Amino acid sequence: MRPLPSHLSEDQIKYHIDPQKDVDCFSPINVAKITAGEETGFPPCTPQAVIEILNHYQIDLTGKKALILGRSMVVGRPLAMMMLKQNATVTICHTKTKNLFEETKKAEILVAAAGKAKIVKADMVGEGAVVIDVGINVDQNGKLCGDVDFEQVQHKAGMITPVPGGVGSVTSTVLVKHTIKALKQQKAIN
Amino acid sequence: MRPLPSHLSEDQIKYHIDPQKDVDCFSPINVAKITAGEETGFPPCTPQAVIEILNHYQIDLTGKKALILGRSMVVGRPLAMMMLKQNATVTICHTKTKNLFEETKKAEILVAAAGKAKIVKADMVGEGAVVIDVGINVDQNGKLCGDVDFEQVQHKAGMITPVPGGVGSVTSTVLVKHTIKALKQQKAIN
Repeated sequence: MRPLPSHLSEDQIKYHIDPQKDVDCFSPINVAKITAGEETGFPPCTPQAVIEILNHYQIDLTGKKALILGRSMVVGRPLAMMMLKQNATVTICHTKTKNLFEETKKAEILVAAAGKAKIVKADMVGEGAVVIDVGINVDQNGKLCGDVDFEQVQHKAGMITPVPGGVGSVTSTVLVKHTIKALKQQKAIN
Repeated sequence: MRPLPSHLSEDQIKYHIDPQKDVDCFSPINVAKITAGEETGFPPCTPQAVIEILNHYQIDLTGKKALILGRSMVVGRPLAMMMLKQNATVTICHTKTKNLFEETKKAEILVAAAGKAKIVKADMVGEGAVVIDVGINVDQNGKLCGDVDFEQVQHKAGMITPVPGGVGSVTSTVLVKHTIKALKQQKAIN
């Protein structure tokens, strides 16, 4: 749901959202729960979509080398905490990372959440890696594309999510799921 | 200040601590600020001590490969967020990590916060690495020791903190610093 319209300040609003209705993790109460690995709150929908995709395809994260490209509050930072909870060894890379290729090539699970069109090329990806593309950008031809150069990387990756029709679609579904969960909790429906 | 006496539940108490008086980061409000990289709150004292030691010795974290051994809420998880804020490339390892030696040997900054006596041996450490030892344990002779085998590792590391007299001592000082900061904020003293 971010960014908010410019007349609204997220830094103020986040303190006033009821944590029980906070279906996309604005509230510090829910952010703290994600950091602590507690499962009673609402994780942000986009990183939760990444986790749901991995779980759906039964990719066990335990001991796996997971690399997250990007350190935003919407994806990178909470996702790191959520992947830790599932026992992955987590590395977070960003614009200041040196030797980025060395890092990304060793990842068994590579999550691209940098917000830059097609920056992940085939030579950055290890053979058979699971590649999850969180980016939603517009390429030079005005077409939607991810942070991953899908054409190239699909031949190197073991599994890869497309853009559009990948993480974004699951994110919308997670948002609905959280909304229903919030309703059930408030009305004490099982 | 943790663990609390057994008749007190941290999970309940943390919601009732005034964030303005929360000098060791119990409150979810402060936890969320650390996760978001906001600097208006109180970080937990132990990871803050690690940061203060690195800053004091002018070790620039930008682009550096930092590895944290341990994923606790007292050290590993918040420290990862704090080192990200200082532009390090951060990897978090733990008991489920495979190929731990491969990971640790490449770290330029290695923070041991696993809570196990002397588990970091010389062959786990890269030549010249900065080694910060957060552990406080008792060895087989009843003497205080860290998570790092200091005798061995001191010859391999470029810089290394001792136990006792390292992170623990700085942590106590950070706690006093936070307490004074809390007072000044509440009384609006500059």
